Amino acid sequence: MTTLRLDLAYDGSGFRGYAYQEGMRTVQGDLEAALKAVLGSPVETAVAGRTDAGVHARGQVVSLVVAEAPDLERLARSLNGIVGPEIAVTAITIADDDFHARLSASWRRYRYTMSTGTAPDPLARGFEWHVGSRLDLGAMAAVAPEFVGELDFSAFCRSVGGATNVRRVDESRWEADGERLHYWIRSNAFCHQMVRSLVGLSYDVGRGFTPGASVREIVGDGDRSRVATVAPPHGLTLWEVGY
Amino acid sequence: MTTLRLDLAYDGSGFRGYAYQEGMRTVQGDLEAALKAVLGSPVETAVAGRTDAGVHARGQVVSLVVAEAPDLERLARSLNGIVGPEIAVTAITIADDDFHARLSASWRRYRYTMSTGTAPDPLARGFEWHVGSRLDLGAMAAVAPEFVGELDFSAFCRSVGGATNVRRVDESRWEADGERLHYWIRSNAFCHQMVRSLVGLSYDVGRGFTPGASVREIVGDGDRSRVATVAPPHGLTLWEVGY
Repeated sequence: MTTLRLDLAYDGSGFRGYAYQEGMRTVQGDLEAALKAVLGSPVETAVAGRTDAGVHARGQVVSLVVAEAPDLERLARSLNGIVGPEIAVTAITIADDDFHARLSASWRRYRYTMSTGTAPDPLARGFEWHVGSRLDLGAMAAVAPEFVGELDFSAFCRSVGGATNVRRVDESRWEADGERLHYWIRSNAFCHQMVRSLVGLSYDVGRGFTPGASVREIVGDGDRSRVATVAPPHGLTLWEVGY
Repeated sequence: MTTLRLDLAYDGSGFRGYAYQEGMRTVQGDLEAALKAVLGSPVETAVAGRTDAGVHARGQVVSLVVAEAPDLERLARSLNGIVGPEIAVTAITIADDDFHARLSASWRRYRYTMSTGTAPDPLARGFEWHVGSRLDLGAMAAVAPEFVGELDFSAFCRSVGGATNVRRVDESRWEADGERLHYWIRSNAFCHQMVRSLVGLSYDVGRGFTPGASVREIVGDGDRSRVATVAPPHGLTLWEVGY
């Protein structure tokens, strides 16, 4: 038995998210159908980050176990011929036997991009959120460190009955790039809609709707009702997974 | 009478080029229809660079003359509401009376992007040419200076009966950016398909199809039949216009 690691990039626009859903177009559905067609039998895959509908990936990681080691370059070519151009298998490597894309991952890093120009940039509009209003980047940057640490992110998670929302975030910062604002966040793991809710609250701070001073309290109280905005998915990209 | 300068960006994928063509979707057609709707009467526009079908723009410039100065912010908002999201009016300013987007321009700068990764990058595939083969960037970089100077570019131009193909290029260089190669070219003006033909020949040099040593001769002879490849339009972006 051989464990393979696949590195993937995808444009999430046309997918109902990564995870397989009956009757829907998903990244996992497309990928597993291609693997089955090329390898000749169905395979089970594991994934590092189950991205939501409309969310993109630049450095997604998938693992699977196959009976014998295939020709890796040829497999990549065959898969890309089927899943492209919306999905790209950027690398296939043989991993350690105990490698598991989800369980072995020690962190995930996402980037969220907003654009603040007059109009959406036609050359990037599928991959960033165009916000009409001027934003106070200073205020947004000032609250970003409030999200760092081992914290209960219940205020930012669509709760799934009983599961813990404690995560360990070790990077949370805004970066200005002309008329674009990038938010970088790295965490051991993320709960559902966490990044988009953190960005939504930061946006509310930036446009003066939520006072920056109240952010610590919102985090502490775990009160989801005070997080008014969930940023749209198309600005979000799973950037990198650490092992 | 007031002369306006409009700065435009557009995703050229869905257009049959910039210039108006009866019954086709063109950038000029969409823009002039929007201007007519907003200003209440037809206007004539001039443009810095008549991009081909499928070519994009980040810094296109258009000028027009209107009877009285409009509220510029409001005009931009109204136009963007009509022409977006594939076209964006990024700025509107009042120009000198004698400003003319085409005649006043002293240079145009284009960028052509190739990607050399395993598969097309799903997050950028609309804006770069994915070339399957490995390219010898050193060889491509070595011929780039052959295109600098006041030269007859007949080998690279779809000739339009009798017009001169002499242009003055003052920048021609390749830049590597990970698995991407950007070609930057700046010239007083360009003839039809010139950038894509220069990129096509450079690509032929990079893949070993055309010897780099023959490039000077090809330029000198003006022999279009030796330029075998015209790079596809979607990798090309009109970057900036100088006045």
